[in-house]
Amino acid sequence: MATSGSVPTTPLLKDELDIVIPTIRNLDFLEMWRPFFQPYHLIIVQDGDPTRTINVPEGFDYELYNRNDINRILGPKASCISFKDSACRCFGYMVSKKKYIYTIDDDCFVAKDPSGKQINALEQHIKNLLCPSTPFFFNTLYDPYREGADFVRGYPFSLREGAKTAVSHGLWLNIPDYDAPTQMVKPLERNSRYVDAVMTVPKGTLFPMCGMNLAFDRELIGPAMYFGLMGDGQPIGRYDDMWAGWCMKVICDHLGLGVKTGLPYIWHSKASNPFVNLKKEYKGIFWQEEIIPFFQASTLSKEHDTVQKCYNELAKQVKEKLGGLDPYFVKLADAMVTWIEAWDELNPTASASTETAATNGPAKK
Amino acid sequence: MATSGSVPTTPLLKDELDIVIPTIRNLDFLEMWRPFFQPYHLIIVQDGDPTRTINVPEGFDYELYNRNDINRILGPKASCISFKDSACRCFGYMVSKKKYIYTIDDDCFVAKDPSGKQINALEQHIKNLLCPSTPFFFNTLYDPYREGADFVRGYPFSLREGAKTAVSHGLWLNIPDYDAPTQMVKPLERNSRYVDAVMTVPKGTLFPMCGMNLAFDRELIGPAMYFGLMGDGQPIGRYDDMWAGWCMKVICDHLGLGVKTGLPYIWHSKASNPFVNLKKEYKGIFWQEEIIPFFQASTLSKEHDTVQKCYNELAKQVKEKLGGLDPYFVKLADAMVTWIEAWDELNPTASASTETAATNGPAKK
Repeated sequence: MATSGSVPTTPLLKDELDIVIPTIRNLDFLEMWRPFFQPYHLIIVQDGDPTRTINVPEGFDYELYNRNDINRILGPKASCISFKDSACRCFGYMVSKKKYIYTIDDDCFVAKDPSGKQINALEQHIKNLLCPSTPFFFNTLYDPYREGADFVRGYPFSLREGAKTAVSHGLWLNIPDYDAPTQMVKPLERNSRYVDAVMTVPKGTLFPMCGMNLAFDRELIGPAMYFGLMGDGQPIGRYDDMWAGWCMKVICDHLGLGVKTGLPYIWHSKASNPFVNLKKEYKGIFWQEEIIPFFQASTLSKEHDTVQKCYNELAKQVKEKLGGLDPYFVKLADAMVTWIEAWDELNPTASASTETAATNGPAKK
Repeated sequence: MATSGSVPTTPLLKDELDIVIPTIRNLDFLEMWRPFFQPYHLIIVQDGDPTRTINVPEGFDYELYNRNDINRILGPKASCISFKDSACRCFGYMVSKKKYIYTIDDDCFVAKDPSGKQINALEQHIKNLLCPSTPFFFNTLYDPYREGADFVRGYPFSLREGAKTAVSHGLWLNIPDYDAPTQMVKPLERNSRYVDAVMTVPKGTLFPMCGMNLAFDRELIGPAMYFGLMGDGQPIGRYDDMWAGWCMKVICDHLGLGVKTGLPYIWHSKASNPFVNLKKEYKGIFWQEEIIPFFQASTLSKEHDTVQKCYNELAKQVKEKLGGLDPYFVKLADAMVTWIEAWDELNPTASASTETAATNGPAKK
């Protein structure tokens, strides 16, 4: 079952993957990633003041969108894209025309494995996405498709084909992804443990998805990767990736898609300010106690057979079941619907095929 | 949240843990374990010919049971204990009077960690059992209670107390625990990947539990650790630990108990004969395709509030739902009930307290 461990001579998926980077500053961090990222196309989503010029190191192939571009392209639907929060990155997922997305924060650098070798995070994500997941049963030796590993005794043979992998969630050495209270309690804690494993998050299990070092198959799950309403004008921040993770996982479980977590690591260089974070997070800290049980209990039915239909159904359930928690969730549910409309507008083929499937007639839009 | 990493000066749980070893040969393998096992009491379950003398290296404190002992102690109920199969080890769980059990196969030796240090597997299992599990939500940085780790951003604070840990499932370097078909296809495969992680198997997720290197809290889950009817006179072997793992996990999920897998590793020295294994396994290979969905769908109710009650209810469901698959499952279901009767007979206090809880009256037996 193991895949070949040989290093490819041309970069994997060179013309099928975009790297999405949300930023408010010059992208000097790309220098360190040059050997790994330069062959790929970048989509830079500039947050904050659109008149500011963002410097991108020479030699990178990129397109850049600031707030004016987002407003121009989406018109009134631009309201679903967050401002002054890295949640704006999801605009990049929407305008991409590639099958795969890798997204990374601009304070993330190349990590080293225990042998001292620089980790090509993107290559590992691609490997994770290109080989199947095992959401239906747990394999104690971790990824059974990896070289030197397999399914253990007692693993049903009917499940050894696995499922298509929709998402690859990578981890972080140095500064761990802690919430503000934990940052405050453990200001000096650094993650130095390199766990040499990739695993599938089992079906039915939710997890905290971090957007710092994340790859996914846009064709399989793209429309579920909405990072919500955060930042400017919103009562909450730092829950953009969590929101996407909950929605995405419920939909992947429903559609039989796999989600992996583990390798690759990046080096997270700098802890954000815990006081600022607490201000952004504190409502989320309360709300997640109700949101998570809501997603754990939410169900989708057979007729929800595309990501878009699943997502619109989730939006409906969010409005019904979380609207009472805070009016914010009514606004968020509406933004979820707007997001899908905008997605389908910018991705008409996907939309058309969805419509065809639904109406069984010719695609018209 | 991290626990102290200091090495204890006296062995942990010295008087609260028994080491259970099923065997048919002299226990020379204990020489290598002497620095770690000698302070503990051993329960040796001698399988096969009871007239054979098993040599135990000098200096170990042990009790040994052969088939004659089992028949004498259990009388007609001895029928629930397998013969000529390592499933007989569960007799040791039943006669122990300690709170914790560690069980290990006699072809397992001390492994080394990547720094070359000998791994004290028992100490790691004890650490796993003494600190909580996190079955209700997935932590991407693995065990949040370990030194240098914690709960990541987005992990509900209400769940950070965790759950009591009932089971610690350890892994194997060198010879992986493969089924016969995989052994045949990959005769040379060796596990050399040391994954430095302990994780909780999420609630609702079944896994293939291997009995080679396994620890558990007898008071919390002991009666569910029945290794079934295998070997002599039975149509199946090598599914003893799997059976226990499925039953145990369903019950742990129902009672809110945690199950961990990962560290520690032992060095598994010798692959068993794949042809012999295939003969033992082949019915299980078919049957597990129906058994696993059965356990995934099985439910317990509020009135099943002790391990014994849960287990008897599972026995009932096995008879009803798997009896049609093969008459073997009717026999197995009966043996499950006999096992609980025998357990309660040998562990009257536990039984009495169960009865008290159930009837709310004085304990009489």
